Amino acid sequence: MKVRVVEDALDANETIAQANRADFDRTGVAVVNLMSAPGAGKTTLLERVLAGGLDGVRAGVLEGDVQGSLDADRLAHLHVPVVQLNTGAGFGGECHLDANMVRSALPALPLDELDLLVIENVGNLVCPAEFRVGEDARIMVSSVAEGEDKPLKYPLMFRACELVVLNKLDLLPHVDFDVERFLHHLDAVHPGVAHLLVSARTGEGVDELRDWLQALPERAEARRALV
Amino acid sequence: MKVRVVEDALDANETIAQANRADFDRTGVAVVNLMSAPGAGKTTLLERVLAGGLDGVRAGVLEGDVQGSLDADRLAHLHVPVVQLNTGAGFGGECHLDANMVRSALPALPLDELDLLVIENVGNLVCPAEFRVGEDARIMVSSVAEGEDKPLKYPLMFRACELVVLNKLDLLPHVDFDVERFLHHLDAVHPGVAHLLVSARTGEGVDELRDWLQALPERAEARRALV
Repeated sequence: MKVRVVEDALDANETIAQANRADFDRTGVAVVNLMSAPGAGKTTLLERVLAGGLDGVRAGVLEGDVQGSLDADRLAHLHVPVVQLNTGAGFGGECHLDANMVRSALPALPLDELDLLVIENVGNLVCPAEFRVGEDARIMVSSVAEGEDKPLKYPLMFRACELVVLNKLDLLPHVDFDVERFLHHLDAVHPGVAHLLVSARTGEGVDELRDWLQALPERAEARRALV
Repeated sequence: MKVRVVEDALDANETIAQANRADFDRTGVAVVNLMSAPGAGKTTLLERVLAGGLDGVRAGVLEGDVQGSLDADRLAHLHVPVVQLNTGAGFGGECHLDANMVRSALPALPLDELDLLVIENVGNLVCPAEFRVGEDARIMVSSVAEGEDKPLKYPLMFRACELVVLNKLDLLPHVDFDVERFLHHLDAVHPGVAHLLVSARTGEGVDELRDWLQALPERAEARRALV
Protein backbone atom coordinates (compact mmCIF):
# COMPACT_ATOMS: atom_id res chain seq x y z
CA MET A 1 0.00 0.00 0.00
CA LYS A 2 1.55 3.23 -1.12
CA VAL A 3 1.09 6.21 1.13
CA ARG A 4 0.06 9.26 -0.83
CA VAL A 5 1.65 12.45 0.40
CA VAL A 6 -0.36 15.59 -0.21
CA GLU A 7 1.92 18.56 -0.45
CA ASP A 8 0.81 22.16 -0.57
CA ALA A 9 -2.37 21.34 1.28
CA LEU A 10 -4.27 24.58 1.11
CA ASP A 11 -5.70 26.33 4.08
CA ALA A 12 -9.38 27.20 4.02
CA ASN A 13 -8.75 30.80 2.96
CA GLU A 14 -6.69 29.75 -0.04
CA THR A 15 -9.33 27.19 -1.09
CA ILE A 16 -12.05 29.84 -1.04
CA ALA A 17 -9.80 32.41 -2.72
CA GLN A 18 -9.34 29.97 -5.60
CA ALA A 19 -13.12 29.50 -5.82
CA ASN A 20 -13.53 33.28 -5.98
CA ARG A 21 -10.85 33.44 -8.65
CA ALA A 22 -12.60 30.78 -10.68
CA ASP A 23 -15.83 32.82 -10.54
CA PHE A 24 -13.98 35.97 -11.56
CA ASP A 25 -12.33 34.14 -14.45
CA ARG A 26 -15.60 32.61 -15.61
CA THR A 27 -17.31 36.02 -15.67
CA GLY A 28 -14.23 37.78 -17.08
CA VAL A 29 -13.70 40.18 -14.20
CA ALA A 30 -10.24 41.46 -13.25
CA VAL A 31 -9.99 42.03 -9.52
CA VAL A 32 -7.75 44.36 -7.57
CA ASN A 33 -7.32 44.31 -3.79
CA LEU A 34 -6.71 47.87 -2.55
CA MET A 35 -4.95 48.04 0.81
CA SER A 36 -3.55 50.75 3.12
CA ALA A 37 -3.43 52.06 6.66
CA PRO A 38 -6.54 53.91 7.90
CA GLY A 39 -6.84 57.33 6.32
CA ALA A 40 -4.25 56.89 3.57
CA GLY A 41 -6.81 57.99 0.99
CA LYS A 42 -8.03 54.80 -0.72
CA THR A 43 -11.63 56.00 -1.08
CA THR A 44 -10.69 59.49 -2.23
CA LEU A 45 -8.36 57.98 -4.84
CA LEU A 46 -11.13 55.70 -6.06
CA GLU A 47 -13.50 58.65 -6.27
CA ARG A 48 -10.96 60.55 -8.40
CA VAL A 49 -10.22 57.59 -10.66
CA LEU A 50 -13.84 56.56 -11.20
CA ALA A 51 -15.25 60.09 -11.53
CA GLY A 52 -13.45 60.48 -14.85
CA GLY A 53 -14.75 57.10 -15.99
CA LEU A 54 -12.64 54.22 -17.27
CA ASP A 55 -12.33 53.92 -21.03
CA GLY A 56 -14.24 50.82 -22.12
CA VAL A 57 -13.88 49.21 -18.69
CA ARG A 58 -16.98 48.64 -16.57
CA ALA A 59 -15.94 48.97 -12.93
CA GLY A 60 -17.55 47.93 -9.66
CA VAL A 61 -16.46 48.40 -6.06
CA LEU A 62 -16.63 46.22 -2.96
CA GLU A 63 -16.10 48.35 0.15
CA GLY A 64 -14.72 46.59 3.22
CA ASP A 65 -15.12 48.29 6.60
CA VAL A 66 -15.47 47.23 10.21
CA GLN A 67 -18.86 48.91 10.30
CA GLY A 68 -20.97 51.54 8.59
CA SER A 69 -21.26 52.44 4.92
CA LEU A 70 -19.51 55.81 4.88
CA ASP A 71 -17.13 54.84 2.08
CA ALA A 72 -19.78 53.18 -0.07
CA ASP A 73 -22.00 56.26 0.40
CA ARG A 74 -19.16 58.48 -0.86
CA LEU A 75 -18.96 56.42 -4.06
CA ALA A 76 -22.71 56.13 -4.59
CA HIS A 77 -22.88 59.13 -6.96
CA LEU A 78 -20.36 57.61 -9.38
CA HIS A 79 -22.89 55.37 -11.11
CA VAL A 80 -20.86 52.21 -10.63
CA PRO A 81 -22.13 49.21 -8.63
CA VAL A 82 -20.95 49.57 -5.03
CA VAL A 83 -21.46 46.96 -2.33
CA GLN A 84 -20.56 47.52 1.33
CA LEU A 85 -19.15 44.56 3.26
CA ASN A 86 -18.95 44.93 7.04
CA THR A 87 -16.55 42.82 9.12
CA GLY A 88 -17.96 43.92 12.47
CA ALA A 89 -19.97 40.78 13.24
CA GLY A 90 -17.22 39.48 15.54
CA PHE A 91 -16.17 41.19 18.75
CA GLY A 92 -14.68 44.50 17.75
CA GLY A 93 -14.76 43.49 14.12
CA GLU A 94 -12.30 41.74 11.87
CA CYS A 95 -9.31 43.88 10.89
CA HIS A 96 -9.11 42.56 7.33
CA LEU A 97 -11.11 41.00 4.53
CA ASP A 98 -10.68 37.30 3.88
CA ALA A 99 -11.73 35.16 0.93
CA ASN A 100 -14.89 33.94 2.64
CA MET A 101 -16.13 37.44 3.46
CA VAL A 102 -15.58 38.46 -0.16
CA ARG A 103 -17.33 35.28 -1.33
CA SER A 104 -20.35 36.13 0.81
CA ALA A 105 -20.62 39.49 -0.96
CA LEU A 106 -20.29 38.19 -4.54
CA PRO A 107 -24.02 37.47 -5.06
CA ALA A 108 -24.67 41.19 -4.45
CA LEU A 109 -22.41 42.14 -7.36
CA PRO A 110 -23.36 41.99 -11.06
CA LEU A 111 -20.13 40.19 -12.03
CA ASP A 112 -21.41 39.47 -15.54
CA GLU A 113 -21.66 43.18 -16.20
CA LEU A 114 -18.21 44.11 -14.87
CA ASP A 115 -14.69 44.12 -16.31
CA LEU A 116 -12.96 45.35 -13.17
CA LEU A 117 -13.80 44.90 -9.49
CA VAL A 118 -11.95 47.02 -6.94
CA ILE A 119 -12.04 45.54 -3.45
CA GLU A 120 -11.21 48.21 -0.88
CA ASN A 121 -9.85 46.39 2.16
CA VAL A 122 -10.13 47.42 5.82
CA GLY A 123 -7.53 50.08 6.70
CA ASN A 124 -4.68 48.06 8.25
CA LEU A 125 -1.01 47.51 7.40
CA VAL A 126 -0.68 44.00 8.83
CA CYS A 127 -3.39 41.36 8.36
CA PRO A 128 -4.90 42.22 4.95
CA ALA A 129 -1.58 41.16 3.38
CA GLU A 130 -2.01 37.67 4.84
CA PHE A 131 -5.34 36.89 3.18
CA ARG A 132 -5.68 36.47 -0.58
CA VAL A 133 -9.27 36.94 -1.71
CA GLY A 134 -8.95 35.75 -5.33
CA GLU A 135 -7.56 38.99 -6.73
CA ASP A 136 -5.41 39.46 -9.85
CA ALA A 137 -3.36 42.25 -8.31
CA ARG A 138 -2.85 44.15 -5.09
CA ILE A 139 -2.30 47.86 -4.71
CA MET A 140 -0.86 49.29 -1.52
CA VAL A 141 -1.50 52.96 -0.77
CA SER A 142 0.88 54.76 1.59
CA SER A 143 0.59 58.42 2.54
CA VAL A 144 3.47 60.83 3.04
CA ALA A 145 1.80 61.82 6.33
CA GLU A 146 2.53 58.33 7.69
CA GLY A 147 6.30 58.64 7.51
CA GLU A 148 9.02 57.22 5.28
CA ASP A 149 9.78 54.27 7.61
CA LYS A 150 6.57 52.35 6.87
CA PRO A 151 8.05 49.80 4.39
CA LEU A 152 10.58 48.77 7.05
CA LYS A 153 7.96 48.50 9.79
CA TYR A 154 5.29 46.67 7.77
CA PRO A 155 7.37 44.75 5.19
CA LEU A 156 4.88 41.98 4.40
CA MET A 157 2.31 44.53 3.23
CA PHE A 158 4.79 46.27 0.94
CA ARG A 159 6.03 42.91 -0.36
CA ALA A 160 2.57 41.50 -1.06
CA CYS A 161 1.59 44.06 -3.70
CA GLU A 162 2.23 44.66 -7.39
CA LEU A 163 1.91 48.44 -7.16
CA VAL A 164 2.70 50.92 -4.41
CA VAL A 165 0.89 54.27 -4.58
CA LEU A 166 2.45 57.05 -2.54
CA ASN A 167 -0.43 59.45 -1.86
CA LYS A 168 -0.88 62.97 -0.40
CA LEU A 169 2.12 64.35 -2.31
CA ASP A 170 0.54 67.78 -1.80
CA LEU A 171 1.52 67.54 1.88
CA LEU A 172 5.24 67.09 1.14
CA PRO A 173 6.15 70.72 1.92
CA HIS A 174 4.49 70.37 5.33
CA VAL A 175 5.78 67.02 6.63
CA ASP A 176 9.21 65.50 7.32
CA PHE A 177 9.19 62.99 4.50
CA ASP A 178 11.97 62.26 2.03
CA VAL A 179 10.50 60.54 -1.06
CA GLU A 180 13.91 59.17 -2.08
CA ARG A 181 14.41 57.60 1.32
CA PHE A 182 10.91 56.05 1.21
CA LEU A 183 11.67 54.57 -2.21
CA HIS A 184 15.00 53.30 -0.89
CA HIS A 185 13.22 51.56 2.01
CA LEU A 186 10.61 50.21 -0.41
CA ASP A 187 13.31 48.82 -2.67
CA ALA A 188 14.92 47.13 0.32
CA VAL A 189 11.79 45.13 1.14
CA HIS A 190 10.37 44.72 -2.40
CA PRO A 191 13.06 45.27 -5.04
CA GLY A 192 11.75 46.58 -8.33
CA VAL A 193 8.09 46.94 -7.39
CA ALA A 194 6.21 49.48 -9.47
CA HIS A 195 5.22 52.73 -7.78
CA LEU A 196 3.24 55.88 -8.52
CA LEU A 197 3.49 59.28 -6.82
CA VAL A 198 0.03 60.80 -6.54
CA SER A 199 -2.15 63.33 -4.78
CA ALA A 200 -5.83 62.48 -4.58
CA ARG A 201 -6.40 66.07 -3.48
CA THR A 202 -4.78 67.86 -6.44
CA GLY A 203 -5.20 65.06 -8.97
CA GLU A 204 -1.45 64.71 -9.57
CA GLY A 205 -0.64 61.19 -10.76
CA VAL A 206 -4.27 60.09 -10.77
CA ASP A 207 -4.22 59.61 -14.57
CA GLU A 208 -1.35 57.12 -14.20
CA LEU A 209 -3.29 55.19 -11.59
CA ARG A 210 -6.34 55.20 -13.87
CA ASP A 211 -4.19 53.89 -16.75
CA TRP A 212 -2.84 51.13 -14.52
CA LEU A 213 -6.34 50.04 -13.45
CA GLN A 214 -7.67 50.34 -16.98
CA ALA A 215 -4.99 47.96 -18.25
CA LEU A 216 -5.72 45.30 -15.64
CA PRO A 217 -8.62 43.54 -17.42
CA GLU A 218 -6.42 43.02 -20.49
CA ARG A 219 -3.60 41.68 -18.31
CA ALA A 220 -6.01 39.30 -16.57
CA GLU A 221 -7.37 38.17 -19.95
CA ALA A 222 -3.83 37.42 -21.17
CA ARG A 223 -3.20 35.34 -18.04
CA ARG A 224 -6.41 33.38 -18.53
CA ALA A 225 -5.48 32.69 -22.16
CA LEU A 226 -2.17 31.19 -21.00
CA VAL A 227 -3.72 28.71 -18.55
CA MET B 1 -23.91 17.62 45.54
CA LYS B 2 -24.22 21.27 44.60
CA VAL B 3 -23.08 22.26 41.14
CA ARG B 4 -20.93 25.34 41.26
CA VAL B 5 -21.51 27.70 38.37
CA VAL B 6 -18.55 29.82 37.41
CA GLU B 7 -19.69 33.03 35.84
CA ASP B 8 -17.46 35.56 34.15
CA ALA B 9 -14.95 32.88 33.29
CA LEU B 10 -12.08 34.87 31.91
CA ASP B 11 -10.44 34.24 28.63
CA ALA B 12 -6.72 33.57 28.63
CA ASN B 13 -5.84 37.13 27.66
CA GLU B 14 -7.81 38.61 30.53
CA THR B 15 -6.24 36.16 33.00
CA ILE B 16 -2.75 37.17 31.91
CA ALA B 17 -3.67 40.87 31.82
CA GLN B 18 -4.71 40.58 35.47
CA ALA B 19 -1.40 38.90 36.30
CA ASN B 20 0.43 41.78 34.60
CA ARG B 21 -1.70 44.25 36.51
CA ALA B 22 -0.85 42.52 39.80
CA ASP B 23 2.86 42.84 38.99
CA PHE B 24 2.45 46.51 38.07
CA ASP B 25 0.54 47.15 41.29
CA ARG B 26 3.12 45.30 43.41
CA THR B 27 5.97 47.35 41.93
CA GLY B 28 3.94 50.58 41.91
CA VAL B 29 4.04 51.21 38.18
CA ALA B 30 1.24 53.03 36.37
CA VAL B 31 0.84 51.70 32.85
CA VAL B 32 -0.55 53.37 29.76
CA ASN B 33 -1.37 51.59 26.50
CA LEU B 34 -0.71 53.97 23.59
CA MET B 35 -2.62 53.08 20.43
CA SER B 36 -3.13 54.56 16.95
CA ALA B 37 -3.12 53.86 13.23
CA PRO B 38 0.30 53.49 11.56
CA GLY B 39 2.01 56.84 11.23
CA ALA B 40 -0.25 58.87 13.54
CA GLY B 41 2.80 60.03 15.47
CA LYS B 42 2.90 57.94 18.68
CA THR B 43 6.69 57.71 18.77
CA THR B 44 7.27 61.36 17.91
CA LEU B 45 4.84 62.38 20.66
CA LEU B 46 6.67 60.16 23.14
CA GLU B 47 9.98 61.69 22.07
CA ARG B 48 8.60 65.17 22.69
CA VAL B 49 7.04 64.29 26.04
CA LEU B 50 10.03 62.39 27.40
CA ALA B 51 12.69 64.77 26.07
CA GLY B 52 11.53 67.41 28.51
CA GLY B 53 11.57 64.88 31.34
CA LEU B 54 8.68 64.08 33.65
CA ASP B 55 8.68 65.85 36.99
CA GLY B 56 9.39 63.28 39.69
CA VAL B 57 8.08 60.43 37.52
CA ARG B 58 10.51 57.76 36.32
CA ALA B 59 9.27 56.58 32.93
CA GLY B 60 10.02 53.52 30.82
CA VAL B 61 8.81 52.47 27.37
CA LEU B 62 7.82 49.15 25.82
CA GLU B 63 7.80 49.45 22.04
CA GLY B 64 5.55 47.07 20.13
CA ASP B 65 6.21 46.55 16.43
CA VAL B 66 5.77 43.78 13.91
CA GLN B 67 9.50 43.76 13.34
CA GLY B 68 12.61 45.85 13.71
CA SER B 69 13.61 48.29 16.44
CA LEU B 70 13.25 51.60 14.57
CA ASP B 71 11.01 53.16 17.23
CA ALA B 72 13.04 51.94 20.19
CA ASP B 73 16.18 53.26 18.48
CA ARG B 74 14.55 56.68 18.13
CA LEU B 75 13.92 56.77 21.89
CA ALA B 76 17.33 55.40 22.89
CA HIS B 77 18.87 58.85 23.42
CA LEU B 78 16.25 59.85 26.00
CA HIS B 79 17.92 58.01 28.88
CA VAL B 80 14.79 56.10 29.84
CA PRO B 81 14.62 52.28 29.78
CA VAL B 82 13.29 51.19 26.39
CA VAL B 83 12.50 47.60 25.43
CA GLN B 84 11.49 46.55 21.93
CA LEU B 85 8.88 43.80 21.60
CA ASN B 86 8.44 42.26 18.16
CA THR B 87 5.21 40.50 17.17
CA GLY B 88 6.57 39.14 13.89
CA ALA B 89 7.16 35.56 15.01
CA GLY B 90 3.93 34.41 13.40
CA PHE B 91 3.23 34.54 9.65
CA GLY B 92 3.22 38.18 8.71
CA GLY B 93 3.29 39.19 12.35
CA GLU B 94 0.59 39.86 14.89
CA CYS B 95 -1.24 43.14 14.34
CA HIS B 96 -1.54 43.98 18.05
CA LEU B 97 0.01 43.41 21.44
CA ASP B 98 -1.72 41.02 23.81
CA ALA B 99 -1.25 40.44 27.53
CA ASN B 100 1.01 37.44 27.01
CA MET B 101 3.39 39.30 24.69
CA VAL B 102 3.65 42.11 27.21
CA ARG B 103 4.18 39.58 30.00
CA SER B 104 7.06 38.02 28.08
CA ALA B 105 8.77 41.42 27.92
CA LEU B 106 8.34 42.34 31.60
CA PRO B 107 11.56 40.64 32.80
CA ALA B 108 13.51 42.97 30.50
CA LEU B 109 12.09 46.04 32.27
CA PRO B 110 13.28 47.41 35.63
CA LEU B 111 9.74 47.71 37.02
CA ASP B 112 11.03 48.43 40.54
CA GLU B 113 12.73 51.57 39.25
CA LEU B 114 9.75 52.91 37.28
CA ASP B 115 6.67 54.97 38.13
CA LEU B 116 5.21 54.99 34.62
CA LEU B 117 5.42 52.48 31.80
CA VAL B 118 4.25 53.54 28.34
CA ILE B 119 3.39 50.61 26.10
CA GLU B 120 3.37 51.70 22.46
CA ASN B 121 1.11 49.29 20.64
CA VAL B 122 1.36 48.15 17.00
CA GLY B 123 -0.10 50.74 14.64
CA ASN B 124 -3.64 49.47 14.00
CA LEU B 125 -7.15 50.84 14.62
CA VAL B 126 -8.91 47.52 15.14
CA CYS B 127 -7.38 44.67 17.16
CA PRO B 128 -5.29 46.50 19.81
CA ALA B 129 -8.58 47.70 21.32
CA GLU B 130 -9.66 44.09 21.87
CA PHE B 131 -6.71 43.07 24.05
CA ARG B 132 -6.15 44.50 27.51
CA VAL B 133 -2.56 44.08 28.64
CA GLY B 134 -2.92 45.08 32.30
CA GLU B 135 -2.83 48.84 31.75
CA ASP B 136 -4.32 51.60 33.94
CA ALA B 137 -5.30 53.75 30.99
CA ARG B 138 -5.40 53.80 27.22
CA ILE B 139 -4.57 56.71 24.98
CA MET B 140 -5.67 56.77 21.37
CA VAL B 141 -3.79 59.01 18.94
CA SER B 142 -5.55 60.11 15.77
CA SER B 143 -4.01 62.39 13.14
CA VAL B 144 -5.81 65.10 11.19
CA ALA B 145 -4.24 63.58 8.05
CA GLU B 146 -6.37 60.45 8.56
CA GLY B 147 -9.70 62.20 8.17
CA GLU B 148 -12.50 63.24 10.51
CA ASP B 149 -14.56 60.07 9.90
CA LYS B 150 -12.27 57.73 11.85
CA PRO B 151 -14.32 57.54 15.11
CA LEU B 152 -17.31 56.36 13.06
CA LYS B 153 -15.28 53.80 11.13
CA TYR B 154 -13.32 52.37 14.07
CA PRO B 155 -15.68 52.95 17.01
CA LEU B 156 -14.34 50.26 19.36
CA MET B 157 -10.90 51.86 19.35
CA PHE B 158 -12.29 55.30 20.17
CA ARG B 159 -14.54 53.79 22.85
CA ALA B 160 -11.82 51.74 24.52
CA CYS B 161 -9.67 54.70 25.60
CA GLU B 162 -9.65 57.26 28.40
CA LEU B 163 -7.95 59.97 26.34
CA VAL B 164 -8.03 60.83 22.65
CA VAL B 165 -5.10 62.84 21.31
CA LEU B 166 -5.71 64.56 17.98
CA ASN B 167 -2.22 65.00 16.50
CA LYS B 168 -0.64 66.85 13.54
CA LEU B 169 -2.68 70.00 14.16
CA ASP B 170 0.02 71.84 12.18
CA LEU B 171 -1.37 70.16 9.03
CA LEU B 172 -4.88 71.60 9.50
CA PRO B 173 -4.44 74.37 6.90
CA HIS B 174 -3.39 71.76 4.33
CA VAL B 175 -5.98 68.99 4.75
CA ASP B 176 -9.78 68.75 4.57
CA PHE B 177 -10.40 68.20 8.26
CA ASP B 178 -12.98 69.91 10.44
CA VAL B 179 -11.95 69.57 14.12
CA GLU B 180 -15.49 70.29 15.33
CA ARG B 181 -16.89 67.56 13.14
CA PHE B 182 -14.25 65.10 14.37
CA LEU B 183 -15.15 65.93 17.99
CA HIS B 184 -18.82 65.55 17.13
CA HIS B 185 -18.15 62.06 15.70
CA LEU B 186 -16.00 61.24 18.74
CA ASP B 187 -18.77 62.31 21.09
CA ALA B 188 -21.21 60.11 19.19
CA VAL B 189 -19.17 56.95 19.84
CA HIS B 190 -17.64 57.87 23.23
CA PRO B 191 -19.63 60.63 24.94
CA GLY B 192 -17.59 62.83 27.24
CA VAL B 193 -14.19 61.23 26.62
CA ALA B 194 -11.26 63.57 27.34
CA HIS B 195 -9.32 64.86 24.36
CA LEU B 196 -6.23 66.95 23.61
CA LEU B 197 -5.36 68.84 20.43
CA VAL B 198 -1.62 68.58 19.79
CA SER B 199 1.15 68.85 17.25
CA ALA B 200 4.19 66.69 17.91
CA ARG B 201 5.94 68.72 15.22
CA THR B 202 5.44 72.21 16.68
CA GLY B 203 5.04 71.15 20.30
CA GLU B 204 1.52 72.59 20.60
CA GLY B 205 -0.43 70.77 23.30
CA VAL B 206 2.51 68.54 24.26
CA ASP B 207 2.68 70.09 27.74
CA GLU B 208 -0.93 69.07 28.38
CA LEU B 209 -0.15 65.50 27.31
CA ARG B 210 2.90 65.50 29.58
CA ASP B 211 0.72 66.73 32.49
CA TRP B 212 -1.78 63.97 31.81
CA LEU B 213 0.91 61.28 31.81
CA GLN B 214 2.61 62.80 34.83
CA ALA B 215 -0.61 62.58 36.85
CA LEU B 216 -1.22 58.93 36.00
CA PRO B 217 0.99 57.37 38.75
CA GLU B 218 -0.92 59.33 41.39
CA ARG B 219 -4.27 58.25 39.91
CA ALA B 220 -3.10 54.61 39.85
CA GLU B 221 -1.91 54.92 43.46
CA ALA B 222 -5.32 56.27 44.50
CA ARG B 223 -7.03 53.33 42.79
CA ARG B 224 -4.76 50.83 44.55
CA ALA B 225 -5.48 52.48 47.91
CA LEU B 226 -9.21 51.97 47.32
CA VAL B 227 -8.97 48.24 46.63
